[in-house]
Amino acid sequence: MPDSPIAPRLQASFDRQTMMATFGATLVSASGGRAVISAPLLPGVRQQHGAGHAALAFGIGDTAAGYAALSLMPEGREVMTAEIKINLLSPALGERFEAVGEVVKPGRRLSVVRAEVVAITGTLRKTIAILQGTMVPVDPAP
Amino acid sequence: MPDSPIAPRLQASFDRQTMMATFGATLVSASGGRAVISAPLLPGVRQQHGAGHAALAFGIGDTAAGYAALSLMPEGREVMTAEIKINLLSPALGERFEAVGEVVKPGRRLSVVRAEVVAITGTLRKTIAILQGTMVPVDPAP
Amino acid sequence: MPDSPIAPRLQASFDRQTMMATFGATLVSASGGRAVISAPLLPGVRQQHGAGHAALAFGIGDTAAGYAALSLMPEGREVMTAEIKINLLSPALGERFEAVGEVVKPGRRLSVVRAEVVAITGTLRKTIAILQGTMVPVDPAP
Amino acid sequence: MPDSPIAPRLQASFDRQTMMATFGATLVSASGGRAVISAPLLPGVRQQHGAGHAALAFGIGDTAAGYAALSLMPEGREVMTAEIKINLLSPALGERFEAVGEVVKPGRRLSVVRAEVVAITGTLRKTIAILQGTMVPVDPAP
Repeated sequence: MPDSPIAPRLQASFDRQTMMATFGATLVSASGGRAVISAPLLPGVRQQHGAGHAALAFGIGDTAAGYAALSLMPEGREVMTAEIKINLLSPALGERFEAVGEVVKPGRRLSVVRAEVVAITGTLRKTIAILQGTMVPVDPAP
Repeated sequence: MPDSPIAPRLQASFDRQTMMATFGATLVSASGGRAVISAPLLPGVRQQHGAGHAALAFGIGDTAAGYAALSLMPEGREVMTAEIKINLLSPALGERFEAVGEVVKPGRRLSVVRAEVVAITGTLRKTIAILQGTMVPVDPAP
Repeated sequence: MPDSPIAPRLQASFDRQTMMATFGATLVSASGGRAVISAPLLPGVRQQHGAGHAALAFGIGDTAAGYAALSLMPEGREVMTAEIKINLLSPALGERFEAVGEVVKPGRRLSVVRAEVVAITGTLRKTIAILQGTMVPVDPAP
Repeated sequence: MPDSPIAPRLQASFDRQTMMATFGATLVSASGGRAVISAPLLPGVRQQHGAGHAALAFGIGDTAAGYAALSLMPEGREVMTAEIKINLLSPALGERFEAVGEVVKPGRRLSVVRAEVVAITGTLRKTIAILQGTMVPVDPAP
C-alpha cells in the first residue's frame, strides 16, 4: 500500500528545516496523526565509535512526532516540541534509519506523542530508540 | 579564571564525533564531573522558523552531559547515553549556544546527569533548554 | 482467556510492597515481559479536585513496568526503577484503574520499559497516562 | 530564617489532596516559585525491601513542583502536571524526606519545573531523587 500523499503545507514546513537536509532526511509520510522520516547514516552525523550520534535518532524521532501532531492540526497552525524523552536501546548502526511518530492524545493546548526509531539493514529492522513527549501548537511567526 | 586543560583522552574522543564538527561545536572544558560545549547557530542546523532545531540543543546538551560523566571515569572507559529528557524553554536564537553538563550522581553502573543549554547574544545569556538523564559506562569497542 | 498464573516469587515480592496495599492494588498478571496491576480510586489517593493523584497513576504504572521486567529475570534477582517519565493525558477518574507494563528491550544491565494506565468505568476504557523508563536488575539485599 | 507564611489558597488546596494525608506529608513552604514538602517513612508507603516506594518520592516531588508553580499564579488558577520525569539516585531510606520544588521557567501556558527529594536522618541529608517536568495552568472546576 503506497503512503498517502503528504499535504503541501507539511512538506513545505519540513523543507524549511535545514537540520533535516543536513541529516539527509526525507519526509516519507505524514497524515492522520502519524508521520515517517527516513535518514541515512551520513559521515557527518556520528559519535566517537562511528555509530549515529544520539542527536540523529533524537532529531528524526522528535521531528516525526512533530509532523504526526501537525498532521492533525488545521492549516495555518504550527507545532513546537515542549519536551521529549528518548531511551536509546542499541547503537545507531544500519544502512538507514526510519523514525515513526504518532499522536497518543491530540489536544488543543498539548499533544502527547511517541516515536520509534528503527535501524534498517537489508531486510533487517531493529528498534534503536523510543521517544515520548509533548508538542504544543503555536501561532506561526508573523 | 581559565578553564582547566582538557585531558587528551577526552579531547580525542570528542574529536571523533563528526556530529560535533557538523554542528561546529567545540569542547570548552571537561573535568571534575562538569563539561562545557560551545556551538554557533550554523545555517544547516535550523528548524522551520530559522531557530536552532531541537536536535542542536539536545545534541550539545547530551554530549556535554556525557563528557561530564566521562571526566570522572578512569582511562580506557567510555560512556553512552542510556536515556535523556529535554525541556525546551525558548526558541534557540542567539549568536552561539553553550551547553553545561554536570554529574548529579556518579556510579559504577549508572551516572545521573543534568545539562543546561544557554543562548548567548552579546552579554545576554538566556536558558533555552534543560536536560536530565542517565549515562552508562561501557567497555570500548575492541 | 484467563491470565496465566503469577509465579510465586513475583506475587511474594508484590505482597511485600505496602504502598500497593495502601493503594488497594492487586497484581492481575505478570509473565513473559508483561504485567497488569488493578487499583480502585480509594478516598485516600486523591488530588485537590477528587481525581486520583498523579502518584497513583505513577505508582501502579511504575510497578507494573517493574514486574514486567522482573518476569523475564531468573529466580533470585530483583529489579529497581532507575528512572521513569509519565505523561498524564486525562484526570484519573473512573471506578478503577488498570496499569499494563511491558518490556520494550530486556537487558542484562538495563531493561527499557513502558506502561499505560487506563481508567475503567463500566465497559468504558480511557487511557489516562503513559510511562517510559528504565529498570535495573539488582542483587537482593542479604 | 523562618519560612515565609503559606498563602491560605495554597494551604487549602494542599489540604484537599488526600494522597498527601495518606503519605503523612505537610506543606512546609510555598512562595515565589519554590515549595517544600516534608514526609515521614510511614509503614504503608514501602516497596518490597522496606525503603520508600518510588511513588512516594515521585508524589512529594511532583506535588512540591506543582505548588512551586502555583505560587506564581494569580488567585483562582489551578495547576496540573502535564508530564514529569524522575531519576532515582538511592533507596528512599531515612527518618523523613524533604521535596524541594522550583520553577525553572514560568509561563502563561506551560511552567517548566524541577524538584529534588532528600532523605534526612539526624543531620545527614542525601539526595535520593531528582525530577524535571511541566505544569499547566487550568481553570478550576466549576
